[in-house]
Amino acid sequence: MEVNVRNNIYVALVHYPVYNKNSDIVATSVTNFDIHDISRTCRTYDINKYFIITPVDAQIELTSRIVGFWQEGVGIDSNRDRNEAFENTLLETSVESTIDKIKEIEGIEPKIITTSAKIFPNTVSYENLSKEILEDKTPYLILFGTGWGLTNEIMDMSYKILEPIRGNTRYNHLSVRSAVSIILDRLLGEI
Amino acid sequence: MEVNVRNNIYVALVHYPVYNKNSDIVATSVTNFDIHDISRTCRTYDINKYFIITPVDAQIELTSRIVGFWQEGVGIDSNRDRNEAFENTLLETSVESTIDKIKEIEGIEPKIITTSAKIFPNTVSYENLSKEILEDKTPYLILFGTGWGLTNEIMDMSYKILEPIRGNTRYNHLSVRSAVSIILDRLLGEI
Repeated sequence: MEVNVRNNIYVALVHYPVYNKNSDIVATSVTNFDIHDISRTCRTYDINKYFIITPVDAQIELTSRIVGFWQEGVGIDSNRDRNEAFENTLLETSVESTIDKIKEIEGIEPKIITTSAKIFPNTVSYENLSKEILEDKTPYLILFGTGWGLTNEIMDMSYKILEPIRGNTRYNHLSVRSAVSIILDRLLGEI
Repeated sequence: MEVNVRNNIYVALVHYPVYNKNSDIVATSVTNFDIHDISRTCRTYDINKYFIITPVDAQIELTSRIVGFWQEGVGIDSNRDRNEAFENTLLETSVESTIDKIKEIEGIEPKIITTSAKIFPNTVSYENLSKEILEDKTPYLILFGTGWGLTNEIMDMSYKILEPIRGNTRYNHLSVRSAVSIILDRLLGEI
């Protein structure tokens, strides 16, 4: 069993700009499970920071309250594991401000990784990206879209695009929480 | 990329009997996200049936209502992908009745697989179990515990026990939804 130690990997869950069912660009709501499950997964895979991106005031307030509860509030004593899970969870208002934040921490812009059910010229396999990020000192930011997915404008920022998790099955509608778990395990897992 | 076609794998999420924080044996509540996320993951990985196990009347009623909404109710038209995800989701009242149900379908009892953070004499690696179930025609039932995990009595039913997902990291508190996703991907994924 091999453990990959990579401490410059960042994850962001994008609530804006994403598409809805009708391909309109919308802001989706932050859900409590997106905060909890993904914080725990990111902590387990030693992600440097997990950014929850939303520009909507009411959503920022709600999310801050939940994250704050576990970071500083009474949540600390009721469940220390959960407190630890939230240590590296942050709010940001846009993909651009998230990139700026990483640049501030790392001194260099991250390479943007996205996922898509479609194949692009810069589509990459899990195996190849896993090897690449182990050798490369550049920070990486893996963006996950909510709703019906990241807008084309954001997709165009991709350095590389991960191939579909299940290319050969008929049904492929994983929750974003499951997708984050599987993708981090494939890129950073021990196998 | 290789696709493993195994159509005799079953998954169950056990809400009773499991431990709570103080090692009492309790029945936990079914959460909406456990129903949705795990149904979608199981459908994606071609799991034959996903059983939600609870003996509590109020929980059975609530869960039936949610699953029924997507299987037969207005949910069908609002989101056909979600309807499809729920096609193979069933309720059972105990681990024993779940085993009986599989026996009814397959004509033979399933081999029980569990997961644990601890190492047992019958602990197995993901790679080895993945190979084994590809070659073996016997049905397999993978049990996942909620709360603080499956009771010793249930663990003792294990044919094999999967090794910890993250054996070498300090923090290992994935949600059960994330654990199911990662484990099915490791056992049945395309890589």
